[in-house]
Formats: sequence, C-alpha cells, structure tokens
Amino acid sequence: MTRHFSHALVVGVGMIGGSVAAALRAHGMAKVISACGPGDDPQAALAAGLIDQVGALGDLVGQADVIVLACPPSAMDQVLNEIGQHRGKLRAGVVITDCASTKQSVIASAHRHLGTAISRFVPGHPIAGSEQRGPGAARAKLFQGARWVLCPQVQTATDAQQTWTEVLAQWGCRVQTMPADEHDALYAAVSHMPHAVAFALCSALARSDQSQAALVAAGAGLKDTTRIGASDAALWADIVMDNRLAVRSGIMQIIGQLQTQIDLLDAQDRQALQREFAQASAWRRQLQD
Amino acid sequence: MTRHFSHALVVGVGMIGGSVAAALRAHGMAKVISACGPGDDPQAALAAGLIDQVGALGDLVGQADVIVLACPPSAMDQVLNEIGQHRGKLRAGVVITDCASTKQSVIASAHRHLGTAISRFVPGHPIAGSEQRGPGAARAKLFQGARWVLCPQVQTATDAQQTWTEVLAQWGCRVQTMPADEHDALYAAVSHMPHAVAFALCSALARSDQSQAALVAAGAGLKDTTRIGASDAALWADIVMDNRLAVRSGIMQIIGQLQTQIDLLDAQDRQALQREFAQASAWRRQLQD
Repeated sequence: MTRHFSHALVVGVGMIGGSVAAALRAHGMAKVISACGPGDDPQAALAAGLIDQVGALGDLVGQADVIVLACPPSAMDQVLNEIGQHRGKLRAGVVITDCASTKQSVIASAHRHLGTAISRFVPGHPIAGSEQRGPGAARAKLFQGARWVLCPQVQTATDAQQTWTEVLAQWGCRVQTMPADEHDALYAAVSHMPHAVAFALCSALARSDQSQAALVAAGAGLKDTTRIGASDAALWADIVMDNRLAVRSGIMQIIGQLQTQIDLLDAQDRQALQREFAQASAWRRQLQD
Repeated sequence: MTRHFSHALVVGVGMIGGSVAAALRAHGMAKVISACGPGDDPQAALAAGLIDQVGALGDLVGQADVIVLACPPSAMDQVLNEIGQHRGKLRAGVVITDCASTKQSVIASAHRHLGTAISRFVPGHPIAGSEQRGPGAARAKLFQGARWVLCPQVQTATDAQQTWTEVLAQWGCRVQTMPADEHDALYAAVSHMPHAVAFALCSALARSDQSQAALVAAGAGLKDTTRIGASDAALWADIVMDNRLAVRSGIMQIIGQLQTQIDLLDAQDRQALQREFAQASAWRRQLQD
C-alpha cells in the first residue's frame, strides 16, 4: 500500500532534498510538494518541476504532513529553532525527518527546540549522493537500493517512524536503525575520514610542483583516490566540523599510519613496509566493489 | 608497417609482462615469445597460452631480439646484472626495455651492469594496470589508449628507441619521453603517493573499532578512495622504497595538510576549513573522469 501525503515540505532542495522531492513525485506519494531553503535552489527546483511551490518555512510548516530537512548541517539548528517556534501550528500526525550526515548534533538541536513535537521527529541519514550538488543533480532513483539509517529516540512516536520507514521501503531503500553515537563513529570512518583524506591529498597536489603536470598525467588510481575531493567544500566543512571529535580521532590514526610509512622508508625496512601494506590490502580485499 | 621480432623474451610475466606478451601476440609481432621470472607466473602464462616457452634467463637472453623486463622493481638490479654477465651473447640489434614504475634506480642498475650494451636499453613505464595481479589479469588491450613514458639516456641508440616506440604506437599507446628525475617526481605525485595514502587509510580502518562495520556500511566514496589500497603489497613496497625520497616528501605534505585540518577542527574555524576544502575541490574539478 502506497503512503500518501497531502502536503510534503522539503527544507533545502539541493541534490538530496531535490531527490527526495523527485522520489515522492515518482511514487505518487504527495498531492503537493513545497520547498523552502537557502539560495536559489528552491526556484531552480520549481523551474525543474521537482516541486509545486516555494514559500517561507513559517508559512508552510503548518500545512505539511511530512517535513524533510535536507539543508546543510550548519543550517539545521536554525531550521529546527524556527519549526519549534511554530510548533503550535504543526499538524497532529506530521512526520519530521532529516537527511544530515551526522546525527548527534541535529538530535541535540531537535531536543532543544521542538518541545513535545520531538515525538514527531525521526532522525535519518540517506547513504547516497555523489560529488555533485544542487537540484540539477537530483534523481528520483538516487535512493533505490541505498542504505538509509534511522536513529530513533526514546521519544520518537512509533507511528512516525513506521510511516517514514514505509516510504523509504517503497523507494527501495534498505532501512537500518542504530544509536546516534554509533552512527557518527561509523560514518566518521566510512565517509567523513575518507573525505578529509581525499581533500588533503588534493590540497597537497594542488600546492606541489607537480600540480599542473599531475592533472595531465593522472591515471585511474589518482582519479579514484581523489574523486570525493571534488565534493562541495561548504557542505563538508559543515559535516566534518559537526562530527569533529570522531573525525579528529580518525585523522590522527591516518597521520599515525603515514608516519609509520615515513619511519620505515627512513629505516629502508622494505619487509616491514610490505607487512604494513599487506595488512591494508587484506582489509580492502574484503570490500566488494 | 608492423614491427616483427623473431624472438621476444619477457622477464616477469605478471599482469604487465603477461599483457606485453598478449599484445605482441595479438599484433602478430613475434614468432616466438618466451618468458622467465620468479614464482609460478611463467608456467601459468604458458598454460594460459600467453607465451610459447619457459626457460632460464641465461639461456634465452642470446636468442631474443627484444627483451622486456616486467619483473618487480626489487628484482631489476639482479636481472640486469645477469643480462650484463651474458652481454657477449646479446644479438646486435636487440632492444632491451623495462616496465618499472620508477626510473632512476633501474637506469642506475643498467649503467652499472650493461657495459656497452647500455645503448640497447630503452627505459620505459606503461601507465596502466590495476589492483589485480598475475598473468591471469593480463589483457592484450591493457595498453590501448594508455600513456607509456620513455626515459631515453644519452647512450640510448636511436634505432632501439625508434623500434620500441613504433611497437607501442601500434598497440595504441600515447608515447611520451621525459627525463628520469622528472618522471620519478611526477609519478610519486600521481601514483606512489596516492597508493601510500590509500594503504594508510585502509590500515587505519583495519585497526579501528569500526573495522568490521565499515566493510558493511562502505559506500562508493570509501570504495573509490581505498580501491588501490587492495594493490599488491610486495610490488608497492618495492616501488615506494625505490622512489623513497620523492614519496617521503609527498607523504610529509599530506601529513601537513591533515595536521592543518586537525588545527582548524580544534579551533572550530569552519570558514578556514571550508577554504582548505574549496582549494582541494577546485584542483580536483580540473581532472576529467
């Protein structure tokens, strides 16, 4: 049975929010899709036919029966604050959910601002996206087959979690729940830390004597290793800063490994270097491409 | 006009040497292809039909009119030493070339061991391959469209360089010449350093609390960033050790960038972090995928 909403509100219609709107539309799940958010994205999404109307958050928040927050992490606190100020207007059965890549800080903001409406909030994180950005990169099938993590709180109403879970299942997502702190440590490892490393590698190359020649000589290895280094700088500064304790610890571990390599190069200890690389390689070969 | 050899000898028939044999065969360039080298690779290459015969280097070296060294960098000095000991047997017009990822050290070995036969040596580096290994990964078209760098010496005979360049052109390679020191600095940046970083990222994850969960939760970003971390540990210990001064300097630059990230996280300076990421991202977006 398909879930139907009378009015879906998407706050922040970049690649993720735009794809949420497109997926709602493609599955015939919402009579009206409205959007608000920073910059030109809402107008671009309207022009692209992803949404039906653009408005102010305060005007739209009372009309929606599902509110999807897909704005940058740094905007989440302000958006939740504004929703909290209008919480008297919220529809009784509304589902509020978000798409932020880190969960502890947005959950803290929700607790701070939503009052009793915290029961309608289902914290979530779609494991999808790319180095592209903006509503032009939105795709209705972006989430098909993708993991979508939910971090429900003890206050989260069962029906809210159930409704959103059914929507995601109908989009073909593999829905998974986990505690927010576990989520943040895990995604520091599998996403935030790799981004930090890719950015660092690009920065080092950009500043090196080989900066221009490397662009010409680059092969598949460099391209793969740096691909996510093309990601949106503002978004990733937000994410990494938001999850800074876990990311910091991960970066320190990488620095430790690189320092080990330096030490072994200096000692000309080829055998020990091979052992280091072999351990790395054995771990990577467990990953299915 | 297709180049024809009466006897091609491939020393080391892993993925690269096996692909050289396969390309020679596919273009009908050699009447006989023989191989020698470490481990089971020659027998496996024979069984796979990549080559016609297996033998000892000392027995084969005098029969060949082209000798392609595709053994690991750490074996190059020994192989060139052995060729040097048999240099009286070498055919007059023989072309000797290699496929090592670093050029200064193999050139130094060639000068040390080949005597007057140094004129027949054309140092080379195919920019091709993958994280796979062994003759089972050999493909006749591996080099089609790929760059192949040559680092000729003042002693290199024009006809030897010309012959090998024509072969590569017929395989569809984009042949490029550059000084060996420039090559080693450039490929430290575009290949060796990214491998070091990918290995370090894999090692850090393998040793972290998220080691197992990360394998399950990994998305495209982690997979791309770590792909070359699955590469052959022995080969890459060789390469990185061989080019250690340039690689060391690159790793130090990466550590510097990661340390900058840590400092900005600690200072909670989101704007400066965004500027760092933006510089990285701007550089990466100049790379065509």
